[in-house]
Amino acid sequence: MDVPLVVQEPASVSARIGIVTVSDRASRGEYEDLGGPAIQDYFRDVLASDWTPVPCLIPDERVVIERTLAALADDERCCLVVTTGGTGPALRDVTPEATEAVCQKLLPGFGELMRKVSLEKVPTAILSRQTAGVRGGTLIINLPGQPKAIRECLDAVMPAVPYCIELLEGPRLETRPERLVAFRPKKPAGG
Amino acid sequence: MDVPLVVQEPASVSARIGIVTVSDRASRGEYEDLGGPAIQDYFRDVLASDWTPVPCLIPDERVVIERTLAALADDERCCLVVTTGGTGPALRDVTPEATEAVCQKLLPGFGELMRKVSLEKVPTAILSRQTAGVRGGTLIINLPGQPKAIRECLDAVMPAVPYCIELLEGPRLETRPERLVAFRPKKPAGG
Amino acid sequence: MDVPLVVQEPASVSARIGIVTVSDRASRGEYEDLGGPAIQDYFRDVLASDWTPVPCLIPDERVVIERTLAALADDERCCLVVTTGGTGPALRDVTPEATEAVCQKLLPGFGELMRKVSLEKVPTAILSRQTAGVRGGTLIINLPGQPKAIRECLDAVMPAVPYCIELLEGPRLETRPERLVAFRPKKPAGG
Repeated sequence: MDVPLVVQEPASVSARIGIVTVSDRASRGEYEDLGGPAIQDYFRDVLASDWTPVPCLIPDERVVIERTLAALADDERCCLVVTTGGTGPALRDVTPEATEAVCQKLLPGFGELMRKVSLEKVPTAILSRQTAGVRGGTLIINLPGQPKAIRECLDAVMPAVPYCIELLEGPRLETRPERLVAFRPKKPAGG
Repeated sequence: MDVPLVVQEPASVSARIGIVTVSDRASRGEYEDLGGPAIQDYFRDVLASDWTPVPCLIPDERVVIERTLAALADDERCCLVVTTGGTGPALRDVTPEATEAVCQKLLPGFGELMRKVSLEKVPTAILSRQTAGVRGGTLIINLPGQPKAIRECLDAVMPAVPYCIELLEGPRLETRPERLVAFRPKKPAGG
Repeated sequence: MDVPLVVQEPASVSARIGIVTVSDRASRGEYEDLGGPAIQDYFRDVLASDWTPVPCLIPDERVVIERTLAALADDERCCLVVTTGGTGPALRDVTPEATEAVCQKLLPGFGELMRKVSLEKVPTAILSRQTAGVRGGTLIINLPGQPKAIRECLDAVMPAVPYCIELLEGPRLETRPERLVAFRPKKPAGG
């Protein structure tokens, strides 16, 4: 019986994904963080390639959020950082401001699409100020606070995320195609 | 015959709503202000709870617009301020810039949705630069200049406005449900 | 035989349109500029009135893009400037930042609509950071890099462009109605 030739691939780098729960009450232990685990479940469900979660639970303090996002990008070398919570209109909601402050580039299309899909569910989706941006080689995306809304938003934007990470020279994320198809445009001749 | 027991409710605070017409010509008396009255008619039509209009008619001067918005928020204690006019691309159109300058938070979802509904009517809706934001406890929304477009935009965003005002710790606005249903999401466990 | 009376119209000013290809590789001659010619073809196809292209081919350098946009607006007196390239999330993509830096007013509706129509084709449309704005009397619009996407975006926004240029006191652009209908709202009584 022939032993099939197995071509050994070089050990691929595990993609590090920062998952930041922004919540005064959850960070004080007044209730359970539901958003962070929902995001971990989601990535576990859709990603086929190796990845490592880097979870954080912090209060709605702009300086703390900024430092956390910067550390996950610069020190922890995450290719992707997602936040949950703190995107509403209330006084303590400052996640979008912190995100904009640490990013060199903003990607308004993420917020537009996430509000659009949430608006199909609830009219108050227009109150969400979610945005996304790039810091160095890291894509940062704000997600809503509630697990159901998190999944709806991730389903909408994730098809574009692996290609975005490749444009930022990060690792190649593979998805389970039956669950999520990552889209990669053919390189244009004159891109 | 029994006299029914009337439970006396505490006098609820009348919600103060600033209505700012921004127009060089209307403020000079060169023509009638149609936008401001159209907004008053609209709120009279859809609001069931007590409210008080605080109308202003000012020219397209950025400093004047900024001072007016700040005074309506800080001194007049309006929970909601709506503007009409000055959101186009012309030199004198500076209402969005003035709004952004006085707000601590911007709510891009309002402008996105208003442009979307206006775009179903006219392709030039993309020229509108309407935005919305929060100053302290006050929600500020830019509306278009024409009465018909004002009503279309308010119909689109108003379902989210009472809940937004509650998140800003303002009064509870009740709507006439046959005319407009205000949406209030159930408080999430981990909001 | 009667000679028909020809009413001589005053020579209309040719509308100057700046067409800026932003690409490191095309500006080094490493490949052909496809975006700039696609834009010229498009305007040749849809415009019926006289116009003059002012084409430029420059690298993805923010300072160079800013100077080029400013010169096309201020010195070349273009009523319209369109860019192609440099709107993605990669490090060298800085066309939106340069555009925002030279504009006095931003028109977010252009980017929103262009992303919306592109999103019907590819999920990675949310990675585009295209915007538009006004510098003095000049409308500046960012377009994507690929000829097919350029045409889709121009088809979406062009119906609003001639009216916008008139609001900026520029020349009247006439379109071929079988190809593109320019929309001009009736002046509202209280604009």
